[in-house]
Amino acid sequence: MTIAFIAEAAGVSVPTVSKVINGRSDVAAETRRRVEAAIVEHGYQRSAGARPRAPLLEVIFHELESEWALEIVRGVERVAGQHQLAVVLSEMQGRRTPGRGWIEGVLARRPTGVIAVFSDLSDALRAQLSTRGIPYVVVDPTGEPLHDTPSVGATNWNGGLTATRHLLGLGHRRIAVIGGPEWILCSRARIDGYRAAMDEAGVGVDPAFISHGKFHVEEGIETGRALLGLPNRPTAIFAGNDLQALGVYQAARELRLHIPEDLSVVGFDDLPVAQWVSPPLTTVRQPLIEMATAAAEMVLAIAAGEEPAQMRVELSTELVIRESTAPPRG
Amino acid sequence: MTIAFIAEAAGVSVPTVSKVINGRSDVAAETRRRVEAAIVEHGYQRSAGARPRAPLLEVIFHELESEWALEIVRGVERVAGQHQLAVVLSEMQGRRTPGRGWIEGVLARRPTGVIAVFSDLSDALRAQLSTRGIPYVVVDPTGEPLHDTPSVGATNWNGGLTATRHLLGLGHRRIAVIGGPEWILCSRARIDGYRAAMDEAGVGVDPAFISHGKFHVEEGIETGRALLGLPNRPTAIFAGNDLQALGVYQAARELRLHIPEDLSVVGFDDLPVAQWVSPPLTTVRQPLIEMATAAAEMVLAIAAGEEPAQMRVELSTELVIRESTAPPRG
Repeated sequence: MTIAFIAEAAGVSVPTVSKVINGRSDVAAETRRRVEAAIVEHGYQRSAGARPRAPLLEVIFHELESEWALEIVRGVERVAGQHQLAVVLSEMQGRRTPGRGWIEGVLARRPTGVIAVFSDLSDALRAQLSTRGIPYVVVDPTGEPLHDTPSVGATNWNGGLTATRHLLGLGHRRIAVIGGPEWILCSRARIDGYRAAMDEAGVGVDPAFISHGKFHVEEGIETGRALLGLPNRPTAIFAGNDLQALGVYQAARELRLHIPEDLSVVGFDDLPVAQWVSPPLTTVRQPLIEMATAAAEMVLAIAAGEEPAQMRVELSTELVIRESTAPPRG
Repeated sequence: MTIAFIAEAAGVSVPTVSKVINGRSDVAAETRRRVEAAIVEHGYQRSAGARPRAPLLEVIFHELESEWALEIVRGVERVAGQHQLAVVLSEMQGRRTPGRGWIEGVLARRPTGVIAVFSDLSDALRAQLSTRGIPYVVVDPTGEPLHDTPSVGATNWNGGLTATRHLLGLGHRRIAVIGGPEWILCSRARIDGYRAAMDEAGVGVDPAFISHGKFHVEEGIETGRALLGLPNRPTAIFAGNDLQALGVYQAARELRLHIPEDLSVVGFDDLPVAQWVSPPLTTVRQPLIEMATAAAEMVLAIAAGEEPAQMRVELSTELVIRESTAPPRG
């Protein structure tokens, strides 16, 4: 399959196809669409030796918020440094899938690999990358599980189970849970782990005790206020992540509820801040740096022509018990 | 001045000079050194049109720690996005000046500009960048003020003055200060601001009340323990940054001292975490995102051939009063 064939199929010139393949921006949108469609339809695949890959690792983030993103960057930097690769960082600024400007830049730069964090790579984007021979790995995919997309995550379901069992073990029964946005898969897994632990203990779940919000402090405050304002308020809250847990701390402070005496709180992630707040936060540790290094190593292995041993890698979560959880009052 | 002239002066071939200029790694260290010396000695300057600059902005960090680094990255991303530039991120892993691998990569990538954060760019590095026509700006230079290096910072002296005046105004007299490492300029400026405020109020400074440590939580804990263990302990601590302030919180907690009743604490930076700790931290806000956007805009202006209006830009700091400061106990 040659560029000339694609040009003929799409009814455009050979240089135009070449521009689209290399992510040049000076091609009309409709022409680009026709060329991309012909590439996919006829199964064009850039030959590996056509143009060497640049010594770059691309990382694209849903949003560059909090130490969470920083831990991921540090993990990728570690592997990149060992392979004399530079790291290119982009942000979707809250969009669920990267925009056109991003993919054109990537095709033009021709990096050694792409790591998409907490993001949906659409079918179109994945086709654009794979037809150009640019491998990709997703960290914490947000959408449906794609078994043909290499991905790295943590044992979220297990983390939810363990956190909830810890609260049940302390004697809590009125346990609320805050999730991330409903479309984010890792968050759904945590809530399912919570449900499993509650079921196992034979404790009914009050539907009012399950909420969703963005993974930010602000949503933790709002949801915390709502939960703590319920007539029969929870004695424990399992927050969707550490930032939401800090928001719950704030909501509790406003209501003059003491943690852990009046309210137990569990977070998720174990960001550095978890140990510096007062009281230090009990949380489910995700090995973020290790997840990032695993993703970087996986994408480099694919770039080197290896078949990944597993398409989906899940690293273990671990409950870190600090001082924000205690038995409920009398 | 041509490459051929440099080759003759250094006693090497033209392709070797070309390799050194373009940051190729396959040149022996001693040869490279001779070529770099000849380049500087004979004032070789790559012509602007020789090879177009890549649509990349390079950012090099002292260390990718805490939300501080993230705020800087976000500011750079903002400007880069407006100019269709991708951001390349590197870390010195705690070294004071970037290593050889970094500069070779930069010369090979030929970015539109370089932003060095919290870093010394040595004379050699600056010569390598400027002879290749790669502009650079330093954010928070750590070493001696270099009037010919474009740089961006905050009004650190003023921040130190304002924070200390705030504590003096509340009635504190035994005010301790923690600085960053002594070789970091912005930290020295903060301590000088502290001294100025103490002088102005006619309050003597106990030498035991001035300490230095890295800008991390751990150093805040250690220094906090040492200060609070003094026979005539301070009633207020002005920490070098917010992370050190969190460390002081921890040291106070260990000694069962309450903030702000037993101890007032002021931080520096106003990272997002400052408002989520308990009690919310009084701190000196540095406009980190604005500092980063200013640096990015400055380097792009230089790349476009403009002369910077000022070689040194200082953005204002601002005291943000929250709940960690109060009058000393009777």
